[in-house]
Amino acid sequence: MRAEIISIGSEITTGQNLDTNCQWLSLRLAELGVSVAFHTTVADDLADNIAAFRIASERVDLVLTTGGLGPTQDDLTREALASVAGVPLQEDAQSLAHIRAMFAARNREMPERNRVQALMPAGSEVLFNARGTAPGVWMKINRAYFAAMPGVPSEMFTMFTEQVVPRMRAAGLLGQGSVILQRKINCFGAGESVIEEKVLDLTRRGHVPEVGITVSDAVISLRIFGRGPTQADALAQIAPVEATIRQRLGDLVYGVDDEELQQVVERLLRQRGLTLATAESVTGGLVAHRLTSVPGASEVFRGGIVAYTNPAKVQLLGVPAALIETHGAVSSQVAEAMAQGARQRLGSDLAVSTTGLAGPGTEGEKPVGLVYVGLAWAEGVRSLAINWGGTRAEILSRSAKSALNAVRLFLLNG
Amino acid sequence: MRAEIISIGSEITTGQNLDTNCQWLSLRLAELGVSVAFHTTVADDLADNIAAFRIASERVDLVLTTGGLGPTQDDLTREALASVAGVPLQEDAQSLAHIRAMFAARNREMPERNRVQALMPAGSEVLFNARGTAPGVWMKINRAYFAAMPGVPSEMFTMFTEQVVPRMRAAGLLGQGSVILQRKINCFGAGESVIEEKVLDLTRRGHVPEVGITVSDAVISLRIFGRGPTQADALAQIAPVEATIRQRLGDLVYGVDDEELQQVVERLLRQRGLTLATAESVTGGLVAHRLTSVPGASEVFRGGIVAYTNPAKVQLLGVPAALIETHGAVSSQVAEAMAQGARQRLGSDLAVSTTGLAGPGTEGEKPVGLVYVGLAWAEGVRSLAINWGGTRAEILSRSAKSALNAVRLFLLNG
Repeated sequence: MRAEIISIGSEITTGQNLDTNCQWLSLRLAELGVSVAFHTTVADDLADNIAAFRIASERVDLVLTTGGLGPTQDDLTREALASVAGVPLQEDAQSLAHIRAMFAARNREMPERNRVQALMPAGSEVLFNARGTAPGVWMKINRAYFAAMPGVPSEMFTMFTEQVVPRMRAAGLLGQGSVILQRKINCFGAGESVIEEKVLDLTRRGHVPEVGITVSDAVISLRIFGRGPTQADALAQIAPVEATIRQRLGDLVYGVDDEELQQVVERLLRQRGLTLATAESVTGGLVAHRLTSVPGASEVFRGGIVAYTNPAKVQLLGVPAALIETHGAVSSQVAEAMAQGARQRLGSDLAVSTTGLAGPGTEGEKPVGLVYVGLAWAEGVRSLAINWGGTRAEILSRSAKSALNAVRLFLLNG
Repeated sequence: MRAEIISIGSEITTGQNLDTNCQWLSLRLAELGVSVAFHTTVADDLADNIAAFRIASERVDLVLTTGGLGPTQDDLTREALASVAGVPLQEDAQSLAHIRAMFAARNREMPERNRVQALMPAGSEVLFNARGTAPGVWMKINRAYFAAMPGVPSEMFTMFTEQVVPRMRAAGLLGQGSVILQRKINCFGAGESVIEEKVLDLTRRGHVPEVGITVSDAVISLRIFGRGPTQADALAQIAPVEATIRQRLGDLVYGVDDEELQQVVERLLRQRGLTLATAESVTGGLVAHRLTSVPGASEVFRGGIVAYTNPAKVQLLGVPAALIETHGAVSSQVAEAMAQGARQRLGSDLAVSTTGLAGPGTEGEKPVGLVYVGLAWAEGVRSLAINWGGTRAEILSRSAKSALNAVRLFLLNG
């Protein structure tokens, strides 16, 4: 049982877009015990699409394609599938009704050209698209089952999970190879080498299970790869190593897999029945944005103030103008006053603040990357200073993480 | 003249690593006037490598491979190349000396297993590796020139630039086709099919220059691909088509290439000497974050208030509680009152607000995806309603774009 993933689009072959669908699908197939032999990317060219589909139909058992299902003349997947299978395209009435309904839901009439999205190769099954207009296609060509899905990631994710996996199961395509499961342990608050030194024996080549270390935007992740005939075997390999890592790294570990600092912070707030507010200067709304990106944030997040200028710090947060004059806006004193001001004005239990320099270019003698995070609660206030490196975008993102992490550590340890 | 890029490694086909080499090479080839027809990724399997190389050797003129040149048993590129070419592997004395010297420079002796890195298919040329131990391979198989390079990005970048490009030139693979330059025209405020209908004659297959249409997070981009013997020729092809597109799409076009709405908004504010403030409910700080992600934002952005709860709307923005009770927090009336409140409290010339439902799950009878954007200025206030589809993250991102776009259109047209 081998699979191939085919990504379709000149925006990928010309390098304009980076294809991430392929990686997502590869991870899902690995979890399902399906081995991926090839990824192929093909430009928006009918002859090349036909050639790629034909090769795949003869060398693997499952082909997952993404892209080429839109309504434009560059969208050739339907036509290429029909050509390789040697069947005509036929309009599917149900799909057409769904496309019309999607437009109607947005108070628009379906443009005539979207009608082509309802064309299906004869003998194929429609893969319902819960999130967009383009239906997918499920059909067998030569030795391979094909699942043709849209290139829009959110549409593809849902279609793969809800429509393709059940059909793979029904066709007997699951659970034949060895399952690979990953567990990602995410850490924040120390550098890569500090963390790596604590787990050197686990990350060495040949260790079973394999443990890798990656860094992304100041988050250090340890990935444990469990392998075995079943998911239970793979999980059993992972569990003791995860326990060792957690024991060694303590509260440097904030979460697992795709968990983010804001989710952990909100979970802790909810557990303790506390609310949070933000006062942001350097991060300019990013801390609030991350907090509100979590569904249900309004239960624990009161709101925030983006005080990007000194007058705004004085007027909206009640920071004494004299404090700014004496210590500068980028100072622990101002960070603490901002947090206190936000806590009071928003009536929250806790408030966190940021003030710093993200560059490019310096202002005065303080270095770009210097950021103060303030934290205010009923009984007190404190602050910490961090020096971040990187571009402006990196400094902003990492400073927002420092603010969230300060709240997390306060909630854990007081 | 067509090229194929082959990435080798099970860490890519299993989804553990995201392949970015391929995108980098695609962009370089486009700049050199070489068209990329296929990307292929193949696992560390000898038979699959041989099959992929054979297919490529028969369908394109240039094959760039990355990976599989290390010293382990998983590194199969040398062997696969020799097999497809039908030649033996031979040790290259100079390469062996270089590998030994690389280890010596780090005060280490060369492990015996690294010796395999000096094996070259008979009749091939060595591609010198200035940054690592693995030499690359240059050879012709069937109709195609192959350049086999390491997978480590820094080693590959240098080898491609210093070793491969001169050989491509010598082999007559450059400048036969043409230079390809891209111009991306970015639009916001209408759907893909609405925009495509206005430029159907330009996006049709066979139009010179080629015009493609892509959608990313509600931004519709028209990409013009200029081709010609020189960059000047390519640019001359682009200019009149860009002018036509701008004339037809009017203020749907907000920028070019990587330009984002917040950059355009801040440029317009600066040109007109105006300042902006934000009042965010549904977007929870994202509009402020995007505005402050632009260097120098403090010249035109006063700050903002994230009023995520109804009490915050009342206390921080002065929205009358009765207004919220009568019309609901998600209403044009509340959007307008929020914008007026932010404008007054932050002392800005303009203020923009958002209120809406991002889901998941509905509250009351208003649908998820319904968002109101309010805009206040010295002489008045107005609002618009938008129905966004998609996930919570997509609704938040698109709503923030709607808010920025409302400011842009006001600054352009009043």
